[in-house]
Amino acid sequence: MDSLDAIFSPKSIAVLGASSTKGKVGHDIFANILQNGYTGTLFPVNPGANSILSVKCYNSILDIPDPVDLAMIILPPKVALSAIKECVKKGVKGIIIISAGFKEVGGEGLIIENQIKEICKEANIRVVGPNCLGVINPSPEVSLNASFSARMPAHGNISFISQSGALCTTVLDFAADRGFGFSKFISIGNKADVDELDLLKYYHNDSATDVVMIYMEELQGDTKEFIEEVKQITSGDNHTPVLAIKSGRSAAGAAAAASHTGSLAGSDAVYDAIFAEAGIYRCESVNQLFDYSEAFSCKKRLHGNRVAIVTNAGGPGIIATDMTITSGLELAKLSPKTIEELHRYLPATANFHNPIDVIGDAAKDRYENTLATVISDDGVDGALIILTPQSMTDALGTAEAIVKIAKHSQKPISCSFMGVVDVSKGVRILQANKIPVYPFPENAAAALGALYKGTRWLNRKILPQYQLTFDRERAKQLIDKHLSEGKEILDELEGSELLKCYGFNTLPMDVAKNEKEAVDIAEKIGYPVVMKIVSPQILHKSDANGVKMNITDQMSVESAFREIVKSAREYKKEAVIEGVLVQKMAPKGEEVILGVNRNPGQMGHSLMFGLGGIFVELFKDVSFRLAPIGRNNARRMIRSIKGYPMLNGFRGRPLADLEAIEKNLVGLSNLVIDFPIIKELDINPLLVYKKGEGATVADVMITLKEPGTTLVTV
Amino acid sequence: MDSLDAIFSPKSIAVLGASSTKGKVGHDIFANILQNGYTGTLFPVNPGANSILSVKCYNSILDIPDPVDLAMIILPPKVALSAIKECVKKGVKGIIIISAGFKEVGGEGLIIENQIKEICKEANIRVVGPNCLGVINPSPEVSLNASFSARMPAHGNISFISQSGALCTTVLDFAADRGFGFSKFISIGNKADVDELDLLKYYHNDSATDVVMIYMEELQGDTKEFIEEVKQITSGDNHTPVLAIKSGRSAAGAAAAASHTGSLAGSDAVYDAIFAEAGIYRCESVNQLFDYSEAFSCKKRLHGNRVAIVTNAGGPGIIATDMTITSGLELAKLSPKTIEELHRYLPATANFHNPIDVIGDAAKDRYENTLATVISDDGVDGALIILTPQSMTDALGTAEAIVKIAKHSQKPISCSFMGVVDVSKGVRILQANKIPVYPFPENAAAALGALYKGTRWLNRKILPQYQLTFDRERAKQLIDKHLSEGKEILDELEGSELLKCYGFNTLPMDVAKNEKEAVDIAEKIGYPVVMKIVSPQILHKSDANGVKMNITDQMSVESAFREIVKSAREYKKEAVIEGVLVQKMAPKGEEVILGVNRNPGQMGHSLMFGLGGIFVELFKDVSFRLAPIGRNNARRMIRSIKGYPMLNGFRGRPLADLEAIEKNLVGLSNLVIDFPIIKELDINPLLVYKKGEGATVADVMITLKEPGTTLVTV
Repeated sequence: MDSLDAIFSPKSIAVLGASSTKGKVGHDIFANILQNGYTGTLFPVNPGANSILSVKCYNSILDIPDPVDLAMIILPPKVALSAIKECVKKGVKGIIIISAGFKEVGGEGLIIENQIKEICKEANIRVVGPNCLGVINPSPEVSLNASFSARMPAHGNISFISQSGALCTTVLDFAADRGFGFSKFISIGNKADVDELDLLKYYHNDSATDVVMIYMEELQGDTKEFIEEVKQITSGDNHTPVLAIKSGRSAAGAAAAASHTGSLAGSDAVYDAIFAEAGIYRCESVNQLFDYSEAFSCKKRLHGNRVAIVTNAGGPGIIATDMTITSGLELAKLSPKTIEELHRYLPATANFHNPIDVIGDAAKDRYENTLATVISDDGVDGALIILTPQSMTDALGTAEAIVKIAKHSQKPISCSFMGVVDVSKGVRILQANKIPVYPFPENAAAALGALYKGTRWLNRKILPQYQLTFDRERAKQLIDKHLSEGKEILDELEGSELLKCYGFNTLPMDVAKNEKEAVDIAEKIGYPVVMKIVSPQILHKSDANGVKMNITDQMSVESAFREIVKSAREYKKEAVIEGVLVQKMAPKGEEVILGVNRNPGQMGHSLMFGLGGIFVELFKDVSFRLAPIGRNNARRMIRSIKGYPMLNGFRGRPLADLEAIEKNLVGLSNLVIDFPIIKELDINPLLVYKKGEGATVADVMITLKEPGTTLVTV
Repeated sequence: MDSLDAIFSPKSIAVLGASSTKGKVGHDIFANILQNGYTGTLFPVNPGANSILSVKCYNSILDIPDPVDLAMIILPPKVALSAIKECVKKGVKGIIIISAGFKEVGGEGLIIENQIKEICKEANIRVVGPNCLGVINPSPEVSLNASFSARMPAHGNISFISQSGALCTTVLDFAADRGFGFSKFISIGNKADVDELDLLKYYHNDSATDVVMIYMEELQGDTKEFIEEVKQITSGDNHTPVLAIKSGRSAAGAAAAASHTGSLAGSDAVYDAIFAEAGIYRCESVNQLFDYSEAFSCKKRLHGNRVAIVTNAGGPGIIATDMTITSGLELAKLSPKTIEELHRYLPATANFHNPIDVIGDAAKDRYENTLATVISDDGVDGALIILTPQSMTDALGTAEAIVKIAKHSQKPISCSFMGVVDVSKGVRILQANKIPVYPFPENAAAALGALYKGTRWLNRKILPQYQLTFDRERAKQLIDKHLSEGKEILDELEGSELLKCYGFNTLPMDVAKNEKEAVDIAEKIGYPVVMKIVSPQILHKSDANGVKMNITDQMSVESAFREIVKSAREYKKEAVIEGVLVQKMAPKGEEVILGVNRNPGQMGHSLMFGLGGIFVELFKDVSFRLAPIGRNNARRMIRSIKGYPMLNGFRGRPLADLEAIEKNLVGLSNLVIDFPIIKELDINPLLVYKKGEGATVADVMITLKEPGTTLVTV
């Protein structure tokens, strides 16, 4: 028996703090268990009552004559603590603490929560909560509704984890309105013991769960362990799709940051990274969470992007087409054989090309023949069926036909049966057979798009890692030297030296203190050169007119030196000007930006990739991962930005050296794993050349700071 | 009496084709009128029946003893035609033709539809349909459900126009599930007579309609008239907000087009332009249409973007914050006075800064005091209230408090009462008082965002037009010359000459046939020069390596000439090479693209604006308007692209000469209005200089073609 079975499928439950007073939590939860057909035995515990809702009540859990699997605690913290000690004595296997007033209020609440944690850990008892809504298991063998919510959801194959109690009731109501079925439903509150990862593992092993939905507020604990474990769950033949909605999208980036990466890499970007690496599908709204989970729950995967649309009305067909394209799918091109066959079943006025219009007077047969024909076309990866109620429409018969065909095909079928009342019998048949069905065609199409995206994760290419060697020793010497000098912000020369240790190409350069030195350096490294201000107070050199490009002779070097120093003084009077960097001018390449930002807490470093310049600054077209990453994550983060085609031959551009970027990202990841003292790092730009010709750092800024000393509130 | 009153509020109705057979349209519509409390008198007409559903039936409408306001026709086309002739004789004021089989099937159906149109026009009778779902007026004075749908929607202040019959049932069911009320609801089908514009005008004058929702498939008729009339409706003190969902977003752009503009300006971009000019709010989904219409129906406008959020749960507050920012709004900064006052009402553990957390145990009072305080803060433009059902929550009392405060404030309040069952009494109070309320906080926030966008349209700046003069005569001479030579594609020199007539700055340039001529031209106009291939077969010169920049001496001109011609030959063997253009090299400026694409049918020319290069090609960051436009539309189309900050001082960039772009857009508009023969035009790039320094055409391509000869299917 899994330790969480006592939570989800207990044979007996004691409700400590059960109450006869309607409206009290202790009443409602007890009543909800009692009145929703729980198949086990239920014991109320309350020293002040003889019976509750006609059920014999006990003074203490220790008085209950039978064994108790699960104790539900609805008591204030202090009372809860002593009750839990009795639960341990009783030998319960699981505890759910509904009440609030623990860690979330701090002080004594926090202390008591920690005591409870310890006691239960010692006794090998799993604890859910405190400060949660409870647990629901609609399976007929258990039929447990140990929650605030009076409504028991339908039974299905999707399990839910919610951190927020506030949202649970709404979600359950929303689900009931949609006829949406759950396998298991839990609210985890403060996560004193049981957390998302425990539940994901449990659901993954649970044969009654085919999809997991998470409503997440904040991950705690070891992020890397979470990613690694969840990646196993969402990958491979025996995978379980996980979809999540995470609150806090824009709470990020509030803190001031010196680097571009720092200003873009807020807490939300961290979750984008975590979800991307773990294979969790991130949804933007509760609607999406439901729509997409329903699509995944059909257990079929969309292995290509070619969709056939079958409709009995033009308008909805167009809407579906739009959303199909918007969702990254394509309309399948039907084979001549398919079209020829369709002519046998459809009237001449039908549209035989995708979207296939079977015409308003289509009864069940026309749908059945059309779907059977297109779904066996090798050029079709999945189908979208739209039914609008018209005079000849047979929603029930059509649904039955779809179910029959779906049983014999591996290709997913998404349906939009429009109209709630007329088509409801058909909708129920589809739902009962796990065929996703939506009231509007755009939702049905978007859900197929999500399924395709999820399938691409499943079928992702996994390439062997690069064999790279790094000079960690020299990097350590460099960093130690800067630290011993109290230097927190490394200039371009210092930054480049450090990057070289991790496989980056850099440009010949040196810092000049005066015009003469500048000329000497330029003559040594050869023209043309670029000159840049060096001052720890001036991070964005261009803003200070502190950069001069394409300098081709001695006189220009001298005048550039003077102008740069003058501009810098005007830009920031108090800036300490350490000199002017003279650098070999790099040949033109595609500008990309690589960055690092250390996250507060246990999240480690975020790595960022994007196209340089305005694409980062204005369009924020960037992707994130958490270090460490290997080749495959580097590869996917490059491919996931919108501007990726610019590196991949868009409109006759040369193919950029993507492998060089990948290796540099892996190098960067190794650098920050080896030296967590790196707080921020911007390589902006990295100039990327044609395939096989590498990439060169054209500017870099690095900030060092001990972790913990600069916890940024995000 | 308005002519459409007979459709929406008839005193008496005859149903021609009424039937006793359940499931037949003639039965269902008659039954729906009869059984939904219609307050007028209802007459069935059917020569084969004595009575229908117990109501005395007539052989012909002419046999009805009383006057008839509205005739509903449910008869096949031929029979319908003679029935309508009798309706005319009877003196009906309005006709709704439900049946299909008319224009949409072509042939005889089309002929009959046209005959009906003519007969009714002659008789001054308004016709709705054919091929439609009918009409609904839930107002208690009328209580008319003359539709297929058995469900009568609730009464409200939002009116609906649907072109698609297929969607109506779904929309009505969806509305019923949400408790959404309608003022009037109509399906217009083939639009033989009554169309969107007629209804918009009618609804605008209807005191019972505060918001109009449209489900549009395709506009017919005079687009410019539509825009001008609707602009009046959506503007000013007496405006009516209009929200639309238009199917066919991606059906566009399928046709091959030579210009960038042509490839981006599909039928969908035309509707973006029409909606933008007319002030119609375009929604992306039925959900948005309902959510946003509900927000507008409160009749308040959000005049600034500073929103205060009041919540009794942290998680939903964060979600609302996210969506608030995403929707273009900001969290209001509360004044010290407000915060001080909040301290009087809220416990110390509350969050006194936006989003304001009144804590889970907040009853009605805390909500009331908090809302009253923040809504009177001058720094707050609107409020968002989130209520999650917790033990002390008083949904009904809180709703009543919100209603009371809303009555005394001009600032909009959007609510999310989470949980359908627990909070339903409160939700009904809010709905009855036209306070928008949503199940999820993200919807409430997005709706406020829509309200703000709509208010910005209402408060838009209207500047006096530029006084520009154009040399239409010379332009005509140039175009006539090209046409007489059979030239359809103008090269850069020819295009620039034409643009000059409409106020564009162009560069000195000439076409060289050989190396010597090239040198002569270069010497004459002065170095540096740019050289470009001139060939009607090579439209994208860079793709053919047909452009050389920054040529500074005679020898380079000669070698550039050779290389350009050689590359062009290699790129396209059959290309006719007319020479090489030698052009003064323009100083660097911001690159933007201005374009024109002539639409098929009556839609005229689409004008496009965007940032040049990759921003157009990959990010498709462009905006459209239909010609003619004046200064204000030009201004708004520049400001509506995502990259606009690049022209407006983003990160220390110089302010670009926006007025120059505006004037050029107005010039372009005049050019295509004067010469509709212009089919496509790309100015790519227009180089824009600093404010006051103008803009210069750096490349242009123009295609001439008689309208009608090249109807592109989009």
